[in-house]
Amino acid sequence: MSLHIVVLAAGKGKRMNSALPKVLQPLGDRPLLKHVVESAQALDPARIHVVYGHGAEQVQSALGYLDVDWDFQAQQLGTGHAVMQAIDAVPDDARVLVLYGDVPLIRPGTLSHLVEAAGTDNLALLTVLLDDPAGYGRIKRGDDNRVVGIVEDKDASADERHIREVNTGLMCAQARHLRDWLSRLTNDNTQGEYYLTDCIAMAAADGVPVVAGQAGSVAETQGINDKRDLACAERMLQRRQADTLMAAGLTLRDPERFDLRGTLHAGRDTRIDIDAVIEGEVVLGDNVHIGPYCVLRNCTIGDHTQVLSHTVIEHAEIGARCQIGPFARLRPDTRLADRAKIGNFVETKKITLGQGSKVNHLSYVGDAEIGANVNVGAGVITCNYDGAHKHLTTIGDDAFIGSDVQLVAPVAVAAGATIGAGSTITKDAPAQQLTLSRARQVSLPGWQRPTKDSPEHE
Amino acid sequence: MSLHIVVLAAGKGKRMNSALPKVLQPLGDRPLLKHVVESAQALDPARIHVVYGHGAEQVQSALGYLDVDWDFQAQQLGTGHAVMQAIDAVPDDARVLVLYGDVPLIRPGTLSHLVEAAGTDNLALLTVLLDDPAGYGRIKRGDDNRVVGIVEDKDASADERHIREVNTGLMCAQARHLRDWLSRLTNDNTQGEYYLTDCIAMAAADGVPVVAGQAGSVAETQGINDKRDLACAERMLQRRQADTLMAAGLTLRDPERFDLRGTLHAGRDTRIDIDAVIEGEVVLGDNVHIGPYCVLRNCTIGDHTQVLSHTVIEHAEIGARCQIGPFARLRPDTRLADRAKIGNFVETKKITLGQGSKVNHLSYVGDAEIGANVNVGAGVITCNYDGAHKHLTTIGDDAFIGSDVQLVAPVAVAAGATIGAGSTITKDAPAQQLTLSRARQVSLPGWQRPTKDSPEHE
Amino acid sequence: MSLHIVVLAAGKGKRMNSALPKVLQPLGDRPLLKHVVESAQALDPARIHVVYGHGAEQVQSALGYLDVDWDFQAQQLGTGHAVMQAIDAVPDDARVLVLYGDVPLIRPGTLSHLVEAAGTDNLALLTVLLDDPAGYGRIKRGDDNRVVGIVEDKDASADERHIREVNTGLMCAQARHLRDWLSRLTNDNTQGEYYLTDCIAMAAADGVPVVAGQAGSVAETQGINDKRDLACAERMLQRRQADTLMAAGLTLRDPERFDLRGTLHAGRDTRIDIDAVIEGEVVLGDNVHIGPYCVLRNCTIGDHTQVLSHTVIEHAEIGARCQIGPFARLRPDTRLADRAKIGNFVETKKITLGQGSKVNHLSYVGDAEIGANVNVGAGVITCNYDGAHKHLTTIGDDAFIGSDVQLVAPVAVAAGATIGAGSTITKDAPAQQLTLSRARQVSLPGWQRPTKDSPEHE
Repeated sequence: MSLHIVVLAAGKGKRMNSALPKVLQPLGDRPLLKHVVESAQALDPARIHVVYGHGAEQVQSALGYLDVDWDFQAQQLGTGHAVMQAIDAVPDDARVLVLYGDVPLIRPGTLSHLVEAAGTDNLALLTVLLDDPAGYGRIKRGDDNRVVGIVEDKDASADERHIREVNTGLMCAQARHLRDWLSRLTNDNTQGEYYLTDCIAMAAADGVPVVAGQAGSVAETQGINDKRDLACAERMLQRRQADTLMAAGLTLRDPERFDLRGTLHAGRDTRIDIDAVIEGEVVLGDNVHIGPYCVLRNCTIGDHTQVLSHTVIEHAEIGARCQIGPFARLRPDTRLADRAKIGNFVETKKITLGQGSKVNHLSYVGDAEIGANVNVGAGVITCNYDGAHKHLTTIGDDAFIGSDVQLVAPVAVAAGATIGAGSTITKDAPAQQLTLSRARQVSLPGWQRPTKDSPEHE
Repeated sequence: MSLHIVVLAAGKGKRMNSALPKVLQPLGDRPLLKHVVESAQALDPARIHVVYGHGAEQVQSALGYLDVDWDFQAQQLGTGHAVMQAIDAVPDDARVLVLYGDVPLIRPGTLSHLVEAAGTDNLALLTVLLDDPAGYGRIKRGDDNRVVGIVEDKDASADERHIREVNTGLMCAQARHLRDWLSRLTNDNTQGEYYLTDCIAMAAADGVPVVAGQAGSVAETQGINDKRDLACAERMLQRRQADTLMAAGLTLRDPERFDLRGTLHAGRDTRIDIDAVIEGEVVLGDNVHIGPYCVLRNCTIGDHTQVLSHTVIEHAEIGARCQIGPFARLRPDTRLADRAKIGNFVETKKITLGQGSKVNHLSYVGDAEIGANVNVGAGVITCNYDGAHKHLTTIGDDAFIGSDVQLVAPVAVAAGATIGAGSTITKDAPAQQLTLSRARQVSLPGWQRPTKDSPEHE
Repeated sequence: MSLHIVVLAAGKGKRMNSALPKVLQPLGDRPLLKHVVESAQALDPARIHVVYGHGAEQVQSALGYLDVDWDFQAQQLGTGHAVMQAIDAVPDDARVLVLYGDVPLIRPGTLSHLVEAAGTDNLALLTVLLDDPAGYGRIKRGDDNRVVGIVEDKDASADERHIREVNTGLMCAQARHLRDWLSRLTNDNTQGEYYLTDCIAMAAADGVPVVAGQAGSVAETQGINDKRDLACAERMLQRRQADTLMAAGLTLRDPERFDLRGTLHAGRDTRIDIDAVIEGEVVLGDNVHIGPYCVLRNCTIGDHTQVLSHTVIEHAEIGARCQIGPFARLRPDTRLADRAKIGNFVETKKITLGQGSKVNHLSYVGDAEIGANVNVGAGVITCNYDGAHKHLTTIGDDAFIGSDVQLVAPVAVAAGATIGAGSTITKDAPAQQLTLSRARQVSLPGWQRPTKDSPEHE
């Protein structure tokens, strides 16, 4: 039997107080709806149907690339009405699994069990155990543990109120049944909406067995309605990711202070200190140490490399046994060979830095190709921008660039060259020689320093 | 009936191990006592009386400006004795609400309910449900749910020990009753103190109805006795503030890593990443993004501005669509027009930066007026201090300041001027021209670089 | 009766996914085993015996210096077998306490009680109350509260399953008994291992009284088996340390965001903001304030000194009333006299900075001796490295070093000297004079700035 998954994603999410439709709110930097579709895809269904409505243009623009059928629901007339928008495209001999675009942490394993429970004839409901079930529809089970009904909170007896198992709204049924039930739904209620849950009573009346699958955790079935829910889900997602990585051997100093917004591959004996933010695709080798308060975005870092505290790295490739930071900022297209070193208050951009080369202090190195064993002194700046274009600086192996040197690009420093401190280098510097530009040092004996009228401190 | 509020704030707080009296210990950067007085003020009482004692001079110096009556309690002889210091100034036809200077998280709504419960004749006690009530006086209620007594922990029967509702010490009574009870208090107990709670038995004996109002949460009634309590209250305050902001639409990546020590107004679709510290008065527009590890103090930030990670901003006004950071430090009196950009390792102080102007890398810009579309290169420094006074640098629109330039103030760079890299500019630079100070670049062929005797790395 | 402590530390810890043996995994930067040995040492035993095996060479290399007997267990054949490796060296009239190298948070007080409970004849088991005891051996107690048996989870009756007190594996017994029991152990079980717990049944059979001591918290008895356990233990250790420091008067803004990996002594009214990392030996005076996101390693900081946010300090001595940061990095052998100031984007290394001296912005100062009341301007760099050796810079009292100056060491600036902005100082600068090296400022009227073909931004 084929599986069709319908994702309800048309709601506005008014309580979000946002110009962004609810299902596009970001969780781990991916829209809520994307999480749901990914979980759906993991079941390898025949087709995924997404019912969208509010913010249609934004939804299409953000997620139109997804390989799903998009069913537009012009008016939001209830969950039953939403499923109606998709049901025509589902063949009678299929199963239909209904998910929600604002229930993002549902696990594929939980869904598989639910689909299995639906079998070829049953209506399967996903339920969950709550510590405080007040307000939710309670699941009544018969002697054979089969679901015999759902009692709404307002109708529940004192005994029934103690039932902790509640309905989540996620369900799986045969398309032939569901199509029939949907056709018989009415909006004869105070909200004037067509409720999908009304199908459960129809199933019972039709003699279709109603079964229940329990979610593994409350987190899985949590709906997101406001920014507090969103923050709560973000922490649950982060904790789940952290647990997976730790189970695989990653050392996290504090899993509650670890944010992964993308994917991380980490080698053996790699350690991440407190408060890391990892974005995009990040690959860390073996024995990599990431210090506190670092941001890593789309980068690869080789074995035994140490990233010290307060470092920001984006779109960079770092070799093995490098040392970076603290207070380093590696901008896009930074490529470091093995054993290279980037120190504090250093910014790099679009550079290659050869094996064993060092830029240790207070420098800006951009648009540069730098050889091996080069020492770039403190305060060195590649003047790569003339106000109109960017130009290249090249530095050969074993060169030594003195402190506070400006390399006015385009310019080349040949292998083994030494540049004197404080020089402004506008022409190529020859190999093995000392090149410098320097005014004569003079002292003025008669000179008087300005004096303070009153104590003043900067 | 008018309402008088008496706040007991005379204790030392010995377990704080601090030179600061307990009620001045900071919570969210405001003294504990200030929190209590603010909650009291929210009830719009006829008068607030603060009974102070320990650290009187410090208390007066820190909070003397508060619009309250200060009643000095020279010796601390118990809670009843403390209320006696204030009761003379309360008219007989008033209600009296007793609060504690070290119970800072009490909510005005809870207090209003307590005052209502006191009505015109009752003694109203604030109670709270504890998971572990051991050590506290249990509230015994009769069939009509009215309080019939308080059983001290040591006197409680096995059944009474299971009562989870306990007395908090906060109470509201009629002044005419309270004055009478206080006059009959004795200090005939092991501590030799006059206990306010002894009034409850007197009320019962006098036939004054004793009623109870329950606090909404344990947090509200938590007393602060040591630094652990203080840290716990700090987190509860922070979580409360975060919840309020999220309910209004603010996105917080992690509400447990958000510290607001003052007030924050945030526009629509504004996001704050992990580990922000917000101090003083901060206003963020719509669609503002604050990156991780930022400190914002007394600043205004315009719509669509991005503050990247590791940025410190204080007393600054930032326009719309600006980009700031990472690793930027904006010091007081920094004013950025729209679309301005401040990059990494840049410090600003007392500057205006015009529309679209950029200071992208490793610069110190202080005491400067900078026009629109100016590019300030890497490593530029305004030499604003001559050892005695600060001087102004002005830079006209469309100027381009090359890298590593020193602008020795007072100095003016005219509109459209270009300053060559590495120049020391001591005189005004004319418009549209290239101005520079530069020594000739030379190379020394015969020169030998010092050699290492042994491997040595910095 | 003398006390011998046997620590079982031979396991591999396969689920750690690490090249490091389990007992060397770091907790608060100290190996798990070291925590256990420290707790053991606190009991002042006659001797500590550590049974080691997996990763023997690594264990010896990391912890061989510990004053314990090392007993090598070549094959890991069970806990009973492990204790056999150590028992020969224990005299008959001693007590034996068995600990585990992967149960690091056990408190000495708990162990003392267990040893007392063992008395001169008993077998004393350490037990703990679990909320969810499933899977653990339940402790059955008789009417006299004495242990009458341990029921394994699989053998437990419905009633027994509700027993929350479980066995932890830690035990204390008389050596004469233990030696006998060990000699009678068999490995006749599915794992083919010799189990220490089998001794309990033997004790009962022999009529040796079995008593139990309860651990104060679950944390104490938590075994570490994977990186999740390790992270969990790290947080418990950190919370415990934070609580101890707060009880002594330290103010922590958030004890959940405080990492101490070593020892901290803090004076009165000292405050640490969120997200501090403290490593090695750190001493803070009275009224010290540490801002958010700081790393302090092996340093001493004087009274009333303020360390602002984003600051890294290692191996430094800081005087009183100094101000440091934000974004400062003090590297080893930095010594600041009272009232010195280090500002943003400043790196120091191996320097002394005299009283009241300031390095406020964007500087690298290394290998320098600087007097009192010196003002080091923005962008100043000590060129201490010639590519082969480090050289010294000395600066006398009251000197003023202009912005962007390079001091090419070895070089001396005499007292009261002023160095002009942008100078490269290669020779000593005389006292009280202005010394500078500067090229003439010129402007080129005809010059044309390069123009953009298309909009391009850096």
